[in-house]
Amino acid sequence: MKITRRVKQILSWYEGETPGVKASLARILMHGRLGGTGRLVILPVDQGWEHGPARSFAKNLPAYDPHYHFQLAIDAGLSAYAAPLGFLEAGADTFAGAIPLILKANNSNSLSTTKDQAITASVQDALRLGCSAIGFTIYPGSEYQFEMIEEVREMSLEAKSVGIATVVWSYPRGGTLSKDGETAVDITAYAAQLAAQIGANIIKVKPPKAHIEQPEAKKVYESEKIDLSTLKARIEHVMQSAFAGRRIVVFSGGEAKELDGVYAEIKEIYAGGGSGSIIGRNTFQRKREDALAMLDRVIGIYQGKD
Amino acid sequence: MKITRRVKQILSWYEGETPGVKASLARILMHGRLGGTGRLVILPVDQGWEHGPARSFAKNLPAYDPHYHFQLAIDAGLSAYAAPLGFLEAGADTFAGAIPLILKANNSNSLSTTKDQAITASVQDALRLGCSAIGFTIYPGSEYQFEMIEEVREMSLEAKSVGIATVVWSYPRGGTLSKDGETAVDITAYAAQLAAQIGANIIKVKPPKAHIEQPEAKKVYESEKIDLSTLKARIEHVMQSAFAGRRIVVFSGGEAKELDGVYAEIKEIYAGGGSGSIIGRNTFQRKREDALAMLDRVIGIYQGKD
Amino acid sequence: MKITRRVKQILSWYEGETPGVKASLARILMHGRLGGTGRLVILPVDQGWEHGPARSFAKNLPAYDPHYHFQLAIDAGLSAYAAPLGFLEAGADTFAGAIPLILKANNSNSLSTTKDQAITASVQDALRLGCSAIGFTIYPGSEYQFEMIEEVREMSLEAKSVGIATVVWSYPRGGTLSKDGETAVDITAYAAQLAAQIGANIIKVKPPKAHIEQPEAKKVYESEKIDLSTLKARIEHVMQSAFAGRRIVVFSGGEAKELDGVYAEIKEIYAGGGSGSIIGRNTFQRKREDALAMLDRVIGIYQGKD
Amino acid sequence: MKITRRVKQILSWYEGETPGVKASLARILMHGRLGGTGRLVILPVDQGWEHGPARSFAKNLPAYDPHYHFQLAIDAGLSAYAAPLGFLEAGADTFAGAIPLILKANNSNSLSTTKDQAITASVQDALRLGCSAIGFTIYPGSEYQFEMIEEVREMSLEAKSVGIATVVWSYPRGGTLSKDGETAVDITAYAAQLAAQIGANIIKVKPPKAHIEQPEAKKVYESEKIDLSTLKARIEHVMQSAFAGRRIVVFSGGEAKELDGVYAEIKEIYAGGGSGSIIGRNTFQRKREDALAMLDRVIGIYQGKD
Amino acid sequence: MKITRRVKQILSWYEGETPGVKASLARILMHGRLGGTGRLVILPVDQGWEHGPARSFAKNLPAYDPHYHFQLAIDAGLSAYAAPLGFLEAGADTFAGAIPLILKANNSNSLSTTKDQAITASVQDALRLGCSAIGFTIYPGSEYQFEMIEEVREMSLEAKSVGIATVVWSYPRGGTLSKDGETAVDITAYAAQLAAQIGANIIKVKPPKAHIEQPEAKKVYESEKIDLSTLKARIEHVMQSAFAGRRIVVFSGGEAKELDGVYAEIKEIYAGGGSGSIIGRNTFQRKREDALAMLDRVIGIYQGKD
Repeated sequence: MKITRRVKQILSWYEGETPGVKASLARILMHGRLGGTGRLVILPVDQGWEHGPARSFAKNLPAYDPHYHFQLAIDAGLSAYAAPLGFLEAGADTFAGAIPLILKANNSNSLSTTKDQAITASVQDALRLGCSAIGFTIYPGSEYQFEMIEEVREMSLEAKSVGIATVVWSYPRGGTLSKDGETAVDITAYAAQLAAQIGANIIKVKPPKAHIEQPEAKKVYESEKIDLSTLKARIEHVMQSAFAGRRIVVFSGGEAKELDGVYAEIKEIYAGGGSGSIIGRNTFQRKREDALAMLDRVIGIYQGKD
Repeated sequence: MKITRRVKQILSWYEGETPGVKASLARILMHGRLGGTGRLVILPVDQGWEHGPARSFAKNLPAYDPHYHFQLAIDAGLSAYAAPLGFLEAGADTFAGAIPLILKANNSNSLSTTKDQAITASVQDALRLGCSAIGFTIYPGSEYQFEMIEEVREMSLEAKSVGIATVVWSYPRGGTLSKDGETAVDITAYAAQLAAQIGANIIKVKPPKAHIEQPEAKKVYESEKIDLSTLKARIEHVMQSAFAGRRIVVFSGGEAKELDGVYAEIKEIYAGGGSGSIIGRNTFQRKREDALAMLDRVIGIYQGKD
Repeated sequence: MKITRRVKQILSWYEGETPGVKASLARILMHGRLGGTGRLVILPVDQGWEHGPARSFAKNLPAYDPHYHFQLAIDAGLSAYAAPLGFLEAGADTFAGAIPLILKANNSNSLSTTKDQAITASVQDALRLGCSAIGFTIYPGSEYQFEMIEEVREMSLEAKSVGIATVVWSYPRGGTLSKDGETAVDITAYAAQLAAQIGANIIKVKPPKAHIEQPEAKKVYESEKIDLSTLKARIEHVMQSAFAGRRIVVFSGGEAKELDGVYAEIKEIYAGGGSGSIIGRNTFQRKREDALAMLDRVIGIYQGKD
Repeated sequence: MKITRRVKQILSWYEGETPGVKASLARILMHGRLGGTGRLVILPVDQGWEHGPARSFAKNLPAYDPHYHFQLAIDAGLSAYAAPLGFLEAGADTFAGAIPLILKANNSNSLSTTKDQAITASVQDALRLGCSAIGFTIYPGSEYQFEMIEEVREMSLEAKSVGIATVVWSYPRGGTLSKDGETAVDITAYAAQLAAQIGANIIKVKPPKAHIEQPEAKKVYESEKIDLSTLKARIEHVMQSAFAGRRIVVFSGGEAKELDGVYAEIKEIYAGGGSGSIIGRNTFQRKREDALAMLDRVIGIYQGKD
Repeated sequence: MKITRRVKQILSWYEGETPGVKASLARILMHGRLGGTGRLVILPVDQGWEHGPARSFAKNLPAYDPHYHFQLAIDAGLSAYAAPLGFLEAGADTFAGAIPLILKANNSNSLSTTKDQAITASVQDALRLGCSAIGFTIYPGSEYQFEMIEEVREMSLEAKSVGIATVVWSYPRGGTLSKDGETAVDITAYAAQLAAQIGANIIKVKPPKAHIEQPEAKKVYESEKIDLSTLKARIEHVMQSAFAGRRIVVFSGGEAKELDGVYAEIKEIYAGGGSGSIIGRNTFQRKREDALAMLDRVIGIYQGKD
């Protein structure tokens, strides 16, 4: 399939990057059923690391097997599959070249009491496993935020020097942030801006809620009458905050909920110009056929069919 | 345009630097409408990082776009444009060679509860993006000050070894400093001295107020009858504190205020021998035509026309 | 498109390689109109380097432009485009991700009086330009053969360590080889074997003629009654010599000739189980529409339609 | 001065390069009296190395002094000044930032009996001296050609990684080349192509003569009726050979001759679309006021005034 | 199986080596049907490289397939399998851990006119393919001998530093050596001594003939009445020359000959205390069942059953 005008336009926004990094981004943007549309749906499976195996996979036993997730992402026609080192190592040869891979290079776990993450993989791993990107989580607001930002910066520079793209999961938490603040619209927009400023090529944030966390920000949102009434409007605001839409921003599925709620939310993301979705638990914790049906519907929304 | 006698004189003060660093400084000093005068006006845009996107750009929507700021700096005939990694990456190719760039290599954000900054870029980034200088913030007085100073020193050494100049934002805060102390004249002069002592080529401080923070300093200011009565006099004192004027010192626009206040302050900086201004929010939070008009007036002041 | 069973089989032969190298091979094998068939057609354009610009491009003036060849390979639906550093640099950004690239990393020219090649690019170049493979020429028989073999080995090891595949152009010449010996069937089979033994992932040789060069080999060909009567039979023998068909071997178009001769030859390559063709001059020295028509026919042969 | 549309167009041709390399090229293309026109005139002074001091400087005694040449290039409003390490070191501080510098990184001398050059400087030297480019000579045809090509490639990769551009002096000589062959049109076009293929950003060749050296090339020039009747036509052919005009090609002044001959030749270069001239001996072996007058006339030609 | 007293004794001779190198040697000495006896039979397959594919494999078509040789060595119960890079890469994964591997790291071919070899693999390759040893050929007497010796020394040092053993094929040829001299007893003993002196852990030489090549040596052999009357006696002399039997020395099968001759020769090697045999063509150029029968007989001899 030839690279579409839309994908060329998106690549042109990454003007500071080498052709190597752009080729890696193109691989993701041209893959799967959304290939060429400029939208993307990514399967991330780091719950085994983050929450433990039973909490992650017991609801759908085949999901304990690393191969299950590669195959699910391929069969659903997704854009990329993201996972920690071990999960990728366990299928990288069987599925070599079958789907763009994102190596999740830092991880936390539910045994930790700090808002921090361990670096769990390297750029060299990404190269030997044939990955198109590395992924990294930062926790803006956390007491470890600067340390995490410094780590992602260092690894991102190395990745860019060898043609590998950078995906940043920007999840505000910790410090003085309230629980509501973690998904507040000002904080989510800020999280997107921060990820873009440290050089992220693809940014992942949560769908923002109407709450505004910071008093200084509240003044501006009110005085400038920024529309926050719908999720669509808030998504538009987040995209704007990601360099006026010059960066790819994908949204997580949010908290587990009924399918109708999921689809409704994704329609808003689509309408608001969001780049796509990154959906983990909501897929692999269902039966395979249900997950495929759900992803078919999600892709349909991003194809403008729904 | 040939290098002026004034610029040659300024370069001669940096006698410990290689011709490469001097050439980078010359590029800034010879660029834009103030090129050759020895004065300079820099556009810094790190507010997206420091305060979040809406607080920074909602008042002037086009400013969400990284290209906007490159173009503003170019059209206004400024000396250089300073921004964090992401903002520079997003325009570095389109505007390659169009204006000297300063890569702001550490940054803080309003979600942080510490007086610290994260290192967010490297000398290698500065080289690949074609920057003339790296910029670094230190917080003299903060409990993190020595760590920050060690970081800037290390990166500055590396930058100098490859011909890239060093700009230091020297912002006293934290520790036992009072709020007034952050802009006190003794502290501001001290901040300029510290930046010069760690090898800064260009120093940024805030316009000093008449307040004196440190009792031991107060004794000397009084016994030596140092004139602090006008901003001009205080600017002269700061320049003197920066190696008897042998270092370039630029002053921020201070808190947002009316235009008349801005111009009045800059006239004092000019009269006091300050090297120039570094003006962010006061420009890009206005409409483009207003910002250009304002910068035209500011440049006029430094050209001695006002 | 999902990776086909045939491509998975081919990848399984490269069992000593990392998933990264396999993913790069998969990219080539899954691209273009032959994607998934296990056959491939590559456009190589190193004639500017090898023969000079006028001899290469004067017959079809648009071919002086590096962009022309990227576009030709893309529009013809080829598997990959191979060229020296300069030609790739001149289009790598415009065509980022549009077609798998092979960086031809050593080159000779018609001003040289030796059977040697200069190393003209590096693995680091391949990474920054987003290439899937590096290409290297060896001249078995030449007095420089061991030096060239050592160079390709060293660069190939480095390439493999970062997930980049190795293509070897194995062109016997020099030393005691007769002119006929350069395309003799024993020598061509030997050339394929040598390339495979030094770790080539894709091997390029010339279509072998019935001539046998080495007396010791002649005895075996005769005693074992190896069928050399048709090009098909000789292709089968070459494929066998490439690890019993476990390596991808592509064949050059041979000397410029009429189209009917070209097609007839390619039908024999197809019938003999050759992996594909690598066709340079015969395409870009024709008008674009003629080249596209010719390549359409060639692809048709490899699709089994002709 | 703002970057002109023409210079932006030229920079867009270097699409494989980082913004850093483009900024270095922009510096040269925007400097001096031809700044912004897309044409350039460079002063090269490596004759002290190549021919010895008396042969180089005795005709114009002040030219023994390294400062003389910096000042001449600046006063004439040239685009850049190119010289070996010692000459640049001897003035780099005094003239820091005054004119783009090209560090000639390999050199030969008249005491040598081989067609080779010694590497005499490094990328690190270029950085500490504030150079915009490194320069390198290759001798296509020489028995040392491959070694020289390998050296320039390695250094060029390093230079590009730190934002420094590459200039290649491509001077065919040695091997089987006849004396006439060194400036034959086919060989000159080939020399330009070779330099472009190894990644040169700026190429220097000699103005080509109508002679054709290679028999195989002659056939093509004749069959394709390539116009070689005028120097203008031959310049057009060389530019075409440099990636269809996508590379900057400058021409040496050729053999020392009368001024009228020099001007006539440069008019042809200008008319043929050549990027500019690189003139050494013809300038610094005249009295300063004569050299300035001559360069004024040359610049006038490239400004289209003559 | 527990390490035998005999193998412990042999390992004790390699007292300069790290436990890592000894463990690699132990792996070879404990593997296969001769495991634990201190004797060994190795299958070497580098004929594809040395003589070309048809000469090597046409007599037994399945031998074109790299997997064939791994399987043959395993099924025959041999001690190790030695081959060039490509052959090992093509089966290293399928047969991972199945038999100790020796990576033949330099190779020559029959197209070469020099008595030299190309380095065709590296220690890094040996590590990634899981090899127990690297193999290297030297040609004592050749004009390239010192170069080859330096190469093996360098690579052996690197191999030892990572726990990989070194096997040296010591084949006198070239220089002033007569054809008979290549297998003369003085020269063979000398070849074993040289290999031992450069740090070989396992030495391969040809079975020595009674001829004495060097006049100075002849005097000593005669004066000291060294028994050269039988192959057994000459083998004893070679073992003695290999550090009084403190180094493992294996003997090639010599020129192709009838089976009875092969067995008779091996009985002499066994009787003379030779460590074992390394048999290539004589095995894989027979049908698989014949080769297995032959190897069964050979192993029987080394088990003292024959």
